[in-house]
Amino acid sequence: MTSPAHSKTAAILVIGDEILSGRTKDKNIGWIAEQLNEMGIDLVEARVIADVEETIISHVTTLSESYDYVFTSGGIGPTHDDITTASIAKAFGHRVHRHPEAVRRLLAHYEGTDIPFNEARQKMADIPEGATLIDNPASAAPGFILKNVYVMAGVPSILQSMFEGLRDKLQGGQKKVRLTVQCAIGEGTIATIMSDVSNHFEGLSVGSYPWFKPGQFGTAVVVSSKQKEDVYAAADMIAELVTKSGYEATILAEGQD
Amino acid sequence: MTSPAHSKTAAILVIGDEILSGRTKDKNIGWIAEQLNEMGIDLVEARVIADVEETIISHVTTLSESYDYVFTSGGIGPTHDDITTASIAKAFGHRVHRHPEAVRRLLAHYEGTDIPFNEARQKMADIPEGATLIDNPASAAPGFILKNVYVMAGVPSILQSMFEGLRDKLQGGQKKVRLTVQCAIGEGTIATIMSDVSNHFEGLSVGSYPWFKPGQFGTAVVVSSKQKEDVYAAADMIAELVTKSGYEATILAEGQD
Repeated sequence: MTSPAHSKTAAILVIGDEILSGRTKDKNIGWIAEQLNEMGIDLVEARVIADVEETIISHVTTLSESYDYVFTSGGIGPTHDDITTASIAKAFGHRVHRHPEAVRRLLAHYEGTDIPFNEARQKMADIPEGATLIDNPASAAPGFILKNVYVMAGVPSILQSMFEGLRDKLQGGQKKVRLTVQCAIGEGTIATIMSDVSNHFEGLSVGSYPWFKPGQFGTAVVVSSKQKEDVYAAADMIAELVTKSGYEATILAEGQD
Repeated sequence: MTSPAHSKTAAILVIGDEILSGRTKDKNIGWIAEQLNEMGIDLVEARVIADVEETIISHVTTLSESYDYVFTSGGIGPTHDDITTASIAKAFGHRVHRHPEAVRRLLAHYEGTDIPFNEARQKMADIPEGATLIDNPASAAPGFILKNVYVMAGVPSILQSMFEGLRDKLQGGQKKVRLTVQCAIGEGTIATIMSDVSNHFEGLSVGSYPWFKPGQFGTAVVVSSKQKEDVYAAADMIAELVTKSGYEATILAEGQD
């Protein structure tokens, strides 16, 4: 067996005052995290920052230098507080220009409606020079790729429609396999079991997530690794050891947790 | 009128592989954001990172130096992957000791149950030297305050019960007043209005959040500032200008959005 290639790494940068004020609850981190996990790309960190030029520049620069992929959400609309495009262009020393293909798509989108393609909406066709467009099947105004930064809208349905078009452009890796062992036992009682099993396999991660319902409690033990056999062996080992201790344990089917 | 004192700044650090894998959706950033906003504390950024010692040390150090308050969630349970306490102690060069009051609380919590206070659970009484305990009304195991870092559990209900006890310990500031103007108009059509109004008042922020339903669309324009009169004046101005353009606009009552 050849050793698996290094997985690509990624970070998410959510740009938006409305998340930091608590008015809007972010849904993009969790959604992108699931997609990347599914594709075998390691999401290493996520950040939420304000709509402030120097803040955007500083975080985009740091994340772009640290990871293979950076996904941003938010701040690419038509209004004065949408400064993501200009800030990211500036971060890389690129100028922004009115992108003919983006103009064409927006014109086609607004054609036959009574929505004017005014100066504010034209701003959504301003794209950094050298960037590649990201299609927006939901509302036409494109995102863009500049270097390793993927710039998308903040509205979850629009972001999701944009991400679909990116899947073929991203280099996935070996997917982690994940199994959940549901244990009718407190987290503190299986800590030793978990730690023993974790030490037994290289590159295996074992997490525990206690849960509580009226009159019931238990712990979901989640084992994951890129080595599928290890995950199945570890789940068996945990279930066996928990059962031996006198508690119930059930291994859920893959994908169930 | 005297100029308002500088508001305290804050950051949130969510520590947990389960958020980065997408398996668990974070609820703590949005909840803490709302509380801080309510208290007049400026949440400047939030980060989600992995359960890795050097990663925790590096982010905690950076955030602690940059902001007045840092709130962490996750990684303080009984199992081998709960390394937040040890990592944060190390970040500040403190040792961890078994805290007598924390032991007492855990013993009291488990008394009369068949849950053993074993080595793993005793680990939850390990607290950095010099730290102050944060009460945990939900499940006894305390969080702690070390310097300006507030270390809490990851389970939202437990984190929330911990945060309640912190309110008196945090220095709030002048609260931002926020009003929403619901406009039956596309975001791109009111961009100029928004930008004009925004420039008219110092320290006023004007955000726009388009929404779509089958057959309907509109834009929620959110104005906020620490100057209450400015917020009301700005909302009036936006509603008037939108109405003059021939579209409906409604100012929602404070707290409604």
